[in-house]
Amino acid sequence: MKIIVDAFGGDNAPLEILRGASLAKKEYGVEIVLTGDKEKIEKCAAENAVDIAGCEIIDAPLVMEAEDDPRAVLKGKLDSSMGAGLTALSEGRGDAFVSAGSTAALVVGGTFLVKRIKGIKRCAIASVMPSDKGPFMLIDCGANAECEPRYLVQFAKMGSVYMEKVLGISSPRVGLANIGAEETKGTPFVRESYALLKETASINFIGNAEVRDIPFGVCDVIVADGFTGNVILKMYEGVAGMLVGNIKAMFKKNLVSKLGALCVMGGLNEFKDKMDYKQYGGAPLLGLTAPVIKAHGSSDARALMNAIRQAKECCEKRVVETITQGMQTADGE
Amino acid sequence: MKIIVDAFGGDNAPLEILRGASLAKKEYGVEIVLTGDKEKIEKCAAENAVDIAGCEIIDAPLVMEAEDDPRAVLKGKLDSSMGAGLTALSEGRGDAFVSAGSTAALVVGGTFLVKRIKGIKRCAIASVMPSDKGPFMLIDCGANAECEPRYLVQFAKMGSVYMEKVLGISSPRVGLANIGAEETKGTPFVRESYALLKETASINFIGNAEVRDIPFGVCDVIVADGFTGNVILKMYEGVAGMLVGNIKAMFKKNLVSKLGALCVMGGLNEFKDKMDYKQYGGAPLLGLTAPVIKAHGSSDARALMNAIRQAKECCEKRVVETITQGMQTADGE
Repeated sequence: MKIIVDAFGGDNAPLEILRGASLAKKEYGVEIVLTGDKEKIEKCAAENAVDIAGCEIIDAPLVMEAEDDPRAVLKGKLDSSMGAGLTALSEGRGDAFVSAGSTAALVVGGTFLVKRIKGIKRCAIASVMPSDKGPFMLIDCGANAECEPRYLVQFAKMGSVYMEKVLGISSPRVGLANIGAEETKGTPFVRESYALLKETASINFIGNAEVRDIPFGVCDVIVADGFTGNVILKMYEGVAGMLVGNIKAMFKKNLVSKLGALCVMGGLNEFKDKMDYKQYGGAPLLGLTAPVIKAHGSSDARALMNAIRQAKECCEKRVVETITQGMQTADGE
Repeated sequence: MKIIVDAFGGDNAPLEILRGASLAKKEYGVEIVLTGDKEKIEKCAAENAVDIAGCEIIDAPLVMEAEDDPRAVLKGKLDSSMGAGLTALSEGRGDAFVSAGSTAALVVGGTFLVKRIKGIKRCAIASVMPSDKGPFMLIDCGANAECEPRYLVQFAKMGSVYMEKVLGISSPRVGLANIGAEETKGTPFVRESYALLKETASINFIGNAEVRDIPFGVCDVIVADGFTGNVILKMYEGVAGMLVGNIKAMFKKNLVSKLGALCVMGGLNEFKDKMDYKQYGGAPLLGLTAPVIKAHGSSDARALMNAIRQAKECCEKRVVETITQGMQTADGE
């Protein structure tokens, strides 16, 4: 199995990316194809003693920057580490692609270079997130700020396939993100989505997921339009980040509070592990003809390694093939 | 000053409501008008030794239940504690109304009984919420799941008046809740709202409030459509509730962890105070011709007392009058 890795995506590229790829190569026995400026990759690896021997390198001198128009990945910056990686994937020069670069560019590039599965209206960003009761998937997390209700049905199906195949959850419970549990709640868009989801026999739809309950773990797949999904994702990150920052400051205040931290060290670590989103890898872009994984922009070597493991699992568990088959069944549309 | 109080709204009615009203009467020197079943109010007060001497009671035997159609407050349940309170307010039998009952019914009843200020398209629920850097207002928190961009301009103006008058923040910074800081982010609705807000001279619009940054305190007034605002509010409550629950469990685990809690008691209490939304009272419904305060459904006596103080401040600081004047200026529409 061959995983293509964008060596210049994310805040810690290329060093942490190379480290992660090197680790994944040893740990998971995958072949690695690195994309990006060949000279810089080799220099960075040599200077930091990162073993990239045996990794193929596709030379692509440019880098998609955060401030670039996402569409540049198709034209002016097709020869970037991301553009080259997506092109290589579309040409079958690897089995999956991992990038910690710009999400918007990855969505545009994935859609037009790797292309969508036949029948899929929109690809979606699917994040596996921690809850009090274990992981759940939120889909769409921001690929499509505007959606039609029928897109949400496809998101529900694709998310169900992923959670079943990759996380081993049988008959994943699907919930619709909404501002109340009752069927009549929300906007006309949400109510119409509810009606369509309810009619879809191939998913296990359990109704509205009241937003307040999401962090407590209410179902396995939560579907939303990309705007709402992104608000949920970012409020999760923002509130957790703010609270954790305050808790840390509280423990660091003085000698007595530091003693307090020691007293609850076990519990703190357990909780940290439970909430560690990095263990689930990155966010798969679902709906494309090959696995594309968006690793977090702040990915370190371990996060990138996990994203590569996730890419490998997507291939092994035949996520793309299963979604494709699903599109051919009766309620595929 | 006379504050009308719904004695049968919320999870802890009537006892905690009566207690809160009694405390507020003594503490703030306001007159209290209680609405609800007179016999039950008097019995509850007598049995629990709550001093309601001097409180006027408007007898209204019915109660708006959570499962009632909100419109019932206008017809079948006009004679409920909420319907009677809103009617009394509209007739000038009190200066403001406080209820911990159903939000949806309060919005409907407020709109059709108390009525909107001339020119105001929709009334909005405005929550004052804690952030890392102090309180901010989120408006609309759910009165209007669907909005037009021009409503958001009115929300921004009303929120600014409240924050300036009641919380003493001069020239409150207004941000638009969005999934990115750039002007081009979000849905067409959000972008159109951005353009209108930018043109509005009477507010201090600072651009998009990236949702991830909201808990850290990015501005004084955050405007959103009611669906998005409700998602933000509930994710805030949900994530904070889940994390705090885990932290509590961690401290309670064993003797050593309990010692740990003692070591950080001071910091824990400081943090708890910073995050205590009850200190700001309830959520004002802005845009009506008289102050209406929605107290939290789980309000205890202290929360209700704070909501009454807030109602008093709205009257004293002439929030309704200032919003009304603002509607008559050049960019009022």
